[in-house]
Amino acid sequence: MANDQLENLKDLIDEIEEYLEDDNFADVSQQLNVLKPAQITRILERLSDRHRAFVYLLLDKDLALRVFEGLSPVLQSDLVNALQDHDTAELFLGLAPDDRVWLLDELPATVASKLLQGLDVDERAQTSALLGYPEESIGRRMSPQFITLREDNTAADALARVQSRLRSAETVYYLPVIDSGRRVLGAVTLRELMGADKTQRVEDLMGPVRTAEVTEDAEAVARRTARRGTFALSVVDHEERLVGIFTLDDAVRILEHEDSEDVSRQGGVEPLRRPYLSTPVSRLVRSRITWLLVLAVGATLTVQVLSVFEATLEQVTVLALFVPLLIGTGGNTGNQAATTVTRALALHDIEPRDIVRVLTRELRTGFMLGLLLGSLGFVITALIYEFEVGLVIGLTLLAVCAVAAAVGGVMPLLARAIKVDPAVFSNPFISTFVDATGLIIYFMIAKAILQI
Amino acid sequence: MANDQLENLKDLIDEIEEYLEDDNFADVSQQLNVLKPAQITRILERLSDRHRAFVYLLLDKDLALRVFEGLSPVLQSDLVNALQDHDTAELFLGLAPDDRVWLLDELPATVASKLLQGLDVDERAQTSALLGYPEESIGRRMSPQFITLREDNTAADALARVQSRLRSAETVYYLPVIDSGRRVLGAVTLRELMGADKTQRVEDLMGPVRTAEVTEDAEAVARRTARRGTFALSVVDHEERLVGIFTLDDAVRILEHEDSEDVSRQGGVEPLRRPYLSTPVSRLVRSRITWLLVLAVGATLTVQVLSVFEATLEQVTVLALFVPLLIGTGGNTGNQAATTVTRALALHDIEPRDIVRVLTRELRTGFMLGLLLGSLGFVITALIYEFEVGLVIGLTLLAVCAVAAAVGGVMPLLARAIKVDPAVFSNPFISTFVDATGLIIYFMIAKAILQI
Repeated sequence: MANDQLENLKDLIDEIEEYLEDDNFADVSQQLNVLKPAQITRILERLSDRHRAFVYLLLDKDLALRVFEGLSPVLQSDLVNALQDHDTAELFLGLAPDDRVWLLDELPATVASKLLQGLDVDERAQTSALLGYPEESIGRRMSPQFITLREDNTAADALARVQSRLRSAETVYYLPVIDSGRRVLGAVTLRELMGADKTQRVEDLMGPVRTAEVTEDAEAVARRTARRGTFALSVVDHEERLVGIFTLDDAVRILEHEDSEDVSRQGGVEPLRRPYLSTPVSRLVRSRITWLLVLAVGATLTVQVLSVFEATLEQVTVLALFVPLLIGTGGNTGNQAATTVTRALALHDIEPRDIVRVLTRELRTGFMLGLLLGSLGFVITALIYEFEVGLVIGLTLLAVCAVAAAVGGVMPLLARAIKVDPAVFSNPFISTFVDATGLIIYFMIAKAILQI
Repeated sequence: MANDQLENLKDLIDEIEEYLEDDNFADVSQQLNVLKPAQITRILERLSDRHRAFVYLLLDKDLALRVFEGLSPVLQSDLVNALQDHDTAELFLGLAPDDRVWLLDELPATVASKLLQGLDVDERAQTSALLGYPEESIGRRMSPQFITLREDNTAADALARVQSRLRSAETVYYLPVIDSGRRVLGAVTLRELMGADKTQRVEDLMGPVRTAEVTEDAEAVARRTARRGTFALSVVDHEERLVGIFTLDDAVRILEHEDSEDVSRQGGVEPLRRPYLSTPVSRLVRSRITWLLVLAVGATLTVQVLSVFEATLEQVTVLALFVPLLIGTGGNTGNQAATTVTRALALHDIEPRDIVRVLTRELRTGFMLGLLLGSLGFVITALIYEFEVGLVIGLTLLAVCAVAAAVGGVMPLLARAIKVDPAVFSNPFISTFVDATGLIIYFMIAKAILQI
């Protein structure tokens, strides 16, 4: 969105909030109903919960449904809760089956089941079928509304079939071909169908089909779809029978959701799910405190290590000056290695069984980094302090960088091997381990060289 | 990709590498030419540069082109360089204009211009037009091959027009409607066209059109396209004239590329661009050393701050024990705030001008976090060491958390205001600033309470 559009939006929101404070609903309604659904969606995202429900009720009915579709499931759920029974059944009916599942995942069970009851038998069956698949599976995110073709259809038959089902399907551009047992044999695009002779048979037109199993992890399938730029793929059950299709725009939606969570978790915060400015401070605190405590408890290890060397510190206080620099550099080196290896894992460039190769490469990389930083550290410290202190700092940097890179490189592989998210798991362990080990290395080297 | 498939791929690669070592090209060729293009692409990604070119030459011509399309521009460029003139002109000809630009961006200028010369006049004009737009602009990533409609076309006319241009266009599913001056008036989907009466006019069918300006930043446009799940949008010049279309799969491709870079840079490494195991260690070192040096130079500030308080440290060595814990907690709190705010910025939930609101919220959040951690720190430290030390640690945690959250929250906004990437800019500044400030706070509090 261009910047001036955003500015306008902000001004509009301020205006709307003023009107609401004055209970001037007519003006709000007039302001809103000339806007595009996407603009209203963005306005609703920025309002407080109470205002949001109010403003929503002021929208014309058709507009309201399109705006609702554009909201994230969390905000949809907030809205449904706020609106109580008012209008919610109709909103729910207007959503596609897979969008209904996104929303149901957010709603309290009682509200969810009440909404489900409001659907007619067919719609309920479709939605319930999706709900029957495991959480986080592609089954919950696929669309059960698709158009299938048969091998022996002619291109003309197939086009007629598409023509007759234009309205009901999620997409008409991707057409799976099935046999009598509903097993997927291939897929045809509408473009291929239109380019064919009328009498050509679908079996001669169809290309190989990309499939996902219905219980597969939704994120993994989405990532595969996005990486290949596939327009859609067929979702099949254990017996290769077609149960749904999954399109690129759904993949993009899942990845936005997941990436947002990943970025947060890597920064040590739980995802907020609601816009920042409308999240209460207490919730911000809750999203951060656990991780902060875990890391702080880990950091008490450094206190313990240092207290072991307290006598050394008392003798040579100057050693204390370099503690933040040394463990900071160790932490940075470890994080760099972890970032690279986590990325390579995500791209399937490496697998957990490559652990020895990764370890060797990271040790070499860390050693070379340590050599560069250590030489620099040695020269500078020797000049400012004394030769021996320079030697201690130089050697410690060398050792810490090598250890940190190795630990940072291996940690994501271990995380993957025990099936936890490498990006989230690695950070606290690297910092705790590298900090403590780095300090031990530092004081061992210092004691040896300074002979204390 | 399922795990067993990957295992098979690894075995296959080992086998191919063995054959290559033995110069057994016939077997390699036989092995490869039965595979799907996507599988061969993944195999090529994993081979060394030398092997990759060899293997590539062993592919059947048709297969070779499809494999080439699947490779990332960097690997395409490696391959073109390795193959010299051999076959490259043909490969280049087989790519779509926008894919050619991705590749040209990677190639040395001399190779690039030679390849361009090899195109016929029309193809060269299309590709050169894209190359004429600024780097990083959507102009370089859009497709110049699209099908346009006119307002007064009937649905039947329009369908016939689509039918006649099935082969040449990037997509046939999204159809911009233009006037005689090539200005975009709206857009129709093929689905809408098929659902209309034959005599209905396009102007009655078309919906509002989403556009991007050709000089807009490609990433921003891609993110907008993905967020809205738009299938395609029209790219226009300064006079609103249609110059290209941009489809969701291109958006996904750009975002994968950008996200990969962002993740790397946030971890303090330059993106590798090539698979991890085929990146030489020297290149791993180069991707990390700059950032590591910058952070180390920043960390020398902590040495300077500590040396100011060296006398205090000599008197009360126990203070040194908590240094890593305190600055570590400060760093973590700052990173958490920066992560949340950076994310909110990316989602346009906040803008740089919200800086005061963000500052207030983060100060409050940091204060509450500090209160929790500080109380805990006070109790534990007072029990193990002594009351006064506990008080120093508790109060320092409180102050450091508040400062760190405020700094971490504000830094991304400042970064955005001076137009640098918040995610990359924030980290080193937060750690340097919070480490140094935290130490100053620590020793000030210590001096006040311990009366030294």
